[in-house]
Amino acid sequence: MLKNKKVNAAILIIGNEILSGRTQDTNTSTIALWLNSIGVKVQEVRVIADIEKKIIDTVNELKKFNDYVFTTGGIGPTHDDITAESISKAFKLDYEIHKKAFKILETYYKLGDFNEGRQKMVWMPKNAKLILNPTSGAPGFSVENVFCLPGVPSILKSMLGGLKNEIVGGKPILSHTISLRTLESEIAKSLTIVQNNNEDIEIGSYPFFQAGKLGVSIVIRSEEQSKIDTCSLEILNFVNKKKIKIVDR
Amino acid sequence: MLKNKKVNAAILIIGNEILSGRTQDTNTSTIALWLNSIGVKVQEVRVIADIEKKIIDTVNELKKFNDYVFTTGGIGPTHDDITAESISKAFKLDYEIHKKAFKILETYYKLGDFNEGRQKMVWMPKNAKLILNPTSGAPGFSVENVFCLPGVPSILKSMLGGLKNEIVGGKPILSHTISLRTLESEIAKSLTIVQNNNEDIEIGSYPFFQAGKLGVSIVIRSEEQSKIDTCSLEILNFVNKKKIKIVDR
Repeated sequence: MLKNKKVNAAILIIGNEILSGRTQDTNTSTIALWLNSIGVKVQEVRVIADIEKKIIDTVNELKKFNDYVFTTGGIGPTHDDITAESISKAFKLDYEIHKKAFKILETYYKLGDFNEGRQKMVWMPKNAKLILNPTSGAPGFSVENVFCLPGVPSILKSMLGGLKNEIVGGKPILSHTISLRTLESEIAKSLTIVQNNNEDIEIGSYPFFQAGKLGVSIVIRSEEQSKIDTCSLEILNFVNKKKIKIVDR
Repeated sequence: MLKNKKVNAAILIIGNEILSGRTQDTNTSTIALWLNSIGVKVQEVRVIADIEKKIIDTVNELKKFNDYVFTTGGIGPTHDDITAESISKAFKLDYEIHKKAFKILETYYKLGDFNEGRQKMVWMPKNAKLILNPTSGAPGFSVENVFCLPGVPSILKSMLGGLKNEIVGGKPILSHTISLRTLESEIAKSLTIVQNNNEDIEIGSYPFFQAGKLGVSIVIRSEEQSKIDTCSLEILNFVNKKKIKIVDR
């Protein structure tokens, strides 16, 4: 386990329904929170259409610059599900019936129900590693550092647990949030000083509206709890001086 | 007005809070639905961190391959708001006080309240065009085909209306959804035939769970209502033959 290395990931959402605005993506947040907990930081997300060339080019780019790539969407039984074939082409692998996946679905569906549509879901890149699906049978798969998951949020969620042993993360990324009844402009200068004092820590400032009132959440992220603590103290110091109220969120 | 040209856009979400999974992005859907209504199709979305080089490189890439680029986030008063300076560098423009923006905020805030933090928000690329903000004063801006909006969803939403005359779209993209009480695998083959009969139409198939039951929404998208109608009829034809129930969603 490379516990001190920074481990990065990219998420690739494949699906016209997100680009059209019809559906709001929730998979990014699900995957990112889970990856954080095992010490992997998401450094980029892309949403692209169901276009083969676009999928191939994007996967090839992302897998080069990230330790892990997670794709969502496009592995179902319909004509617009082209992820598995596109990934095969990206890796220059044959696109073929995956015997283990075939057996899983043959068992999952009663005899006769394993129709042509469903059989499409066992076509995968040659020698792909399966990602088991406890919700609806049809497995996802991985090739090298690219992990292909379905787009339906509840199914995707149920499959992440089974991936834990496949991902070698760094130190988990810890975070601490301080929510204040103030405006960003009131604390911007003080917060800049704290950031300059703690250059290797990520400090984010996010305005919010809650129960008709404005506030700011300051989020401190680091792999070291002690650094988060030091940074929090510096923030609480100017918060007290300025008599700003701390609020629950 | 180039009413027959296809007009494309990319959305660039700048913000560590989306990448960490802490916040779910809703701006993509807001912008995409609005763009569809004025005939602009979103072909790509990217989410990146508050890192200057990443912002510069991504903006330069996206503005080359899209008619319009919309960025969200990073234009507030705090240290992590680096969009305006990064865009200046992407376009090789001076980063300076925008006189009109200064006047707007000077008027918006009562005398004395226009503090150092707020004054950061009037620094922009030289000669940037302002995007007025009816909610909270501080304007966004555009340079050539890149439009920079804030990350707070309610503020962003309030600013889109004012942009309408800046964007020249093609024909509005129309869509029609048919929701069915069935499974994707039951209709995959028939739907492929319809797609093959109507190659220039985008037909998407999206499984859903509703009130404990499974279903599939078929979404047909085109700029031509007549093509959508033809396609719908072909779908309803196999739906009737298969005795599949149509449901409301």
